[in-house]
Amino acid sequence: MNTMQFFVYGASVLATALGAAVAQEAGGEYVQVAEIEVDPAQLDAYRAAVQKQIDAAIQKEPGVLVLYAVSEKDDSSRVKVFEIYRDRRAYEAHLGSEHFKKYKSTVEKMVKSLKLVQATPIALGAKTK
Amino acid sequence: MNTMQFFVYGASVLATALGAAVAQEAGGEYVQVAEIEVDPAQLDAYRAAVQKQIDAAIQKEPGVLVLYAVSEKDDSSRVKVFEIYRDRRAYEAHLGSEHFKKYKSTVEKMVKSLKLVQATPIALGAKTK
Repeated sequence: MNTMQFFVYGASVLATALGAAVAQEAGGEYVQVAEIEVDPAQLDAYRAAVQKQIDAAIQKEPGVLVLYAVSEKDDSSRVKVFEIYRDRRAYEAHLGSEHFKKYKSTVEKMVKSLKLVQATPIALGAKTK
Repeated sequence: MNTMQFFVYGASVLATALGAAVAQEAGGEYVQVAEIEVDPAQLDAYRAAVQKQIDAAIQKEPGVLVLYAVSEKDDSSRVKVFEIYRDRRAYEAHLGSEHFKKYKSTVEKMVKSLKLVQATPIALGAKTK
């Protein structure tokens, strides 16, 4: 059984007008939803690889803000990852990181399909509780 | 033009073993992805209603942890909302809240389809930057 190695709640920081302006200058945050279909027989190994990758990215990469990976309840082989990066450059840096490259090679034969949906924020609300 | 009334970055709080244990006792967090198709002609009004609802829920409801609403970049009428509640009871309380009921009646004629996908967390990683 997989136990979550780390478990994180989002905590809210209402951005000041200044903060928002800075984000705009940098091109704004880069948001993406990954829709992944995993080989059901390899689901435990896939989950472990995702956990490890997310743990490393959040700890080591300042531009990786949110990586929420979940399985659909009715079909756990269908995985979604909600991703927020500080900007496009931070996303590109993430793709080139050692932990991400290792993740990609580890899961290469576990993933049956991958769809990346780029997105534009409407409202990003979060808090700690 | 819609400007975001509030803009929030997730901030990381690595849960302690105790924190995780408390979440388990309460049945664990309730996670859902809403997939919404909006009438393109009413998209600005829809966005404003979502922003208002998310703002109120995050501020007023202790059990509403994350509400990330985004539009697909290639088709902004396709909206996804990534939702984390403290537990199922917090989700049910949210459905009964005044701001949510007002949102539902406001957007009733703007929403062409709604699919709610319940989900199980694999890894929830977030931080402030």
